[in-house]
Amino acid sequence: MAMGTAVELITIGDELLLGFTIDTNGAFLARELAAVGVSIVRRTSVGDDATAIAGAVREALERTGAAITTGGLGPTSDDMTKPSIAAVFGRGMRRDEAILEALRARWKARGWGGTLPRTNEQQADVPEGASILTNRHGSAPGIWLEDERGWVAMLPGVPREMRGMFTEELLPRVRERAAAGGAATVVLSRTVRTTSIAESALADLITPVASRHTDVSLAYLPHWPGVDLRVTARGDAREAERAVTSAVATLREVAGAHVYGEGNDDLAAVVLDLCRAQGAQVAVAESCTGGLLGGRLTAIPGSSDLFRGGVIAYHNAVKVEALGVAEATLAAHGAVSVETAREMAAGVRARFGCDVGVSITGIAGPGGGSEEKPVGTVCCAVDVRGDVVAHRRQMVGDREEVRQRSTQWALDLLRRGLTGSLSKRPA
Amino acid sequence: MAMGTAVELITIGDELLLGFTIDTNGAFLARELAAVGVSIVRRTSVGDDATAIAGAVREALERTGAAITTGGLGPTSDDMTKPSIAAVFGRGMRRDEAILEALRARWKARGWGGTLPRTNEQQADVPEGASILTNRHGSAPGIWLEDERGWVAMLPGVPREMRGMFTEELLPRVRERAAAGGAATVVLSRTVRTTSIAESALADLITPVASRHTDVSLAYLPHWPGVDLRVTARGDAREAERAVTSAVATLREVAGAHVYGEGNDDLAAVVLDLCRAQGAQVAVAESCTGGLLGGRLTAIPGSSDLFRGGVIAYHNAVKVEALGVAEATLAAHGAVSVETAREMAAGVRARFGCDVGVSITGIAGPGGGSEEKPVGTVCCAVDVRGDVVAHRRQMVGDREEVRQRSTQWALDLLRRGLTGSLSKRPA
Repeated sequence: MAMGTAVELITIGDELLLGFTIDTNGAFLARELAAVGVSIVRRTSVGDDATAIAGAVREALERTGAAITTGGLGPTSDDMTKPSIAAVFGRGMRRDEAILEALRARWKARGWGGTLPRTNEQQADVPEGASILTNRHGSAPGIWLEDERGWVAMLPGVPREMRGMFTEELLPRVRERAAAGGAATVVLSRTVRTTSIAESALADLITPVASRHTDVSLAYLPHWPGVDLRVTARGDAREAERAVTSAVATLREVAGAHVYGEGNDDLAAVVLDLCRAQGAQVAVAESCTGGLLGGRLTAIPGSSDLFRGGVIAYHNAVKVEALGVAEATLAAHGAVSVETAREMAAGVRARFGCDVGVSITGIAGPGGGSEEKPVGTVCCAVDVRGDVVAHRRQMVGDREEVRQRSTQWALDLLRRGLTGSLSKRPA
Repeated sequence: MAMGTAVELITIGDELLLGFTIDTNGAFLARELAAVGVSIVRRTSVGDDATAIAGAVREALERTGAAITTGGLGPTSDDMTKPSIAAVFGRGMRRDEAILEALRARWKARGWGGTLPRTNEQQADVPEGASILTNRHGSAPGIWLEDERGWVAMLPGVPREMRGMFTEELLPRVRERAAAGGAATVVLSRTVRTTSIAESALADLITPVASRHTDVSLAYLPHWPGVDLRVTARGDAREAERAVTSAVATLREVAGAHVYGEGNDDLAAVVLDLCRAQGAQVAVAESCTGGLLGGRLTAIPGSSDLFRGGVIAYHNAVKVEALGVAEATLAAHGAVSVETAREMAAGVRARFGCDVGVSITGIAGPGGGSEEKPVGTVCCAVDVRGDVVAHRRQMVGDREEVRQRSTQWALDLLRRGLTGSLSKRPA
């Protein structure tokens, strides 16, 4: 790899060793860096421990010559990123009066009252000889340190602040280094998103045609939304673009209707785009997912044009009163049945005056299963302008996985319903 | 740290460098290992690259002498954990006939049809001289390799499989090593969970009393549910227990009503426990959160005893028709107002025949803000047996953060409403 095209990401904080944090920073940085031909080649998490922080940075400098750290710049006593890394560069710390003034002004402007607390003042401490990465989105400034071994950029851990600082302050520097290092080569990735098909079944479709595309690498990324297929090529920008485009076309051809999008496409956004194109208003009726389907749709900005609302029909009485499910249907087939799912979808569509209704009813577990309907049994229905189709499926996983997979499946049924590719054979 | 009490976690897969994965494995392993006095001292993520995998394992062996890897044991061509690590130990690979038979039997039992695909057969390849960690929850077996430098355990990446294999196969070995290494010392952590208070405001409450507890370390962990306070002590088991218990008591005292729980306590579960104790049935009415509040409550097993359901009232017509909000209220105060929030909470409580109703209405952004009601303006109300209280707050963050924080805030208002600690002053 050309000098300047590889970087290591070091995330700092005891909480990261516990793994509770959902790391959106890594995804953001990987995507933004790839666009300028730079790859994250290793990620390391260490605790709030000066020796561990210094060790990880020293190794990254020696191995790769470039590191971005996130976290440990905040006001509390466990934040020790700056002094630990200053020590790796043999630098002391100094208090920066300009930063201190900015912190005080910010405190006052926010109307937080009183004077800047002592604990916040240490955010104005910077290593000797460092460049400051200005924080326009929060209080902790970032730091750039560099010597003959390479460079380290210290960013805050809070995603909003990290993103702003990266884009405004760090990306221009990284791009400059990559260009200086002769990075005519790029790393180009595209991801094809599939759902409702297993990884090994996909592999059996793809393996026979893989030999046509030896100029790309292919990764299977299975998770609850489905299996993503990531194609990557490295090298000359135009060659890589051609190789990736050709491989993506092949994947789309063999995976067919299982493909719902590319990149970060969210199935909920795909479904809303279909609704927008057809001028269709949507309503949802949810039992076991308890609002997750509505949550997915309303996560998409602009969904208010198309999504009217829904009923969380957890209790059977709500299914009857708010959705008009017949008590006889519940008695004969049970709450988790294709029959109940049909009436829920049709009921919410009619009552909310929509073109499309979607329903989910299932047994998320851990309790509530039976021999006939084990935990993971889920029924979904879509009513597209009066044409109602219901299916039943057996989901694997724990309660949360069953709920997430069910939500994704309901969206997929709606996608197929709106594109005329939904099987109507009774489930 | 005593031999046998530290381990490194190495996660393998190109997708991890992209950071899209929500790592629940790390949290599980950290918790389970801490209980037997073992800490994860470093986490490293490398791609599906034999050199990088081997390098990370070699370094961990030299630095810490113990490593757990997750991922890269699956059937596809990008899974290369086993041969890469075998090479670090100077071992070749052999095909294990017993594993192959088990894979074939599993394939047949699942009714997947045909014979085991060639791509799946390589899951039966194991390093020479390795111990097998049996997988009772999936197809890929785990591997244990060891020499004079230390040990490496290779677990699958799929959480359900990883957890089962860890508990059944790996934990007994790790416990044995920790005992053999003289781990009379333990690492004991407890976390106190707060919400509706900023990190620096908490620090100003806590800093004056921190000197009473020099025998523990304290970490502030801010994220959207609030700020968690983690107290950690190392050393003799009884001493550590005493130090942590005492520090937790102090934190609970100074943080007062901002504390909603400990450890992994979910505010939704805390609220449902309060409802259960009071025999209170709950319903929700959601606008900007679109179902997330229902989703949080129904994520808790057993919630069906207490949660009846709700209305996702995204469109104003739904607020009027399904919740009984007065058109005059919407016209006079707007959909995002304490007045509308009050009528939504009261309406859903009455219509769903519940003891308690909770509502959320706000502007999640990015569009829809105004000078008077900028993006992030959120109003919530709780109606506890006819006693309705509404508040307005300004949330920071992007659309998803505003929605998550609003949901957490609504749950917190309900908690305070049920415990009689909710301020009734008009917001």
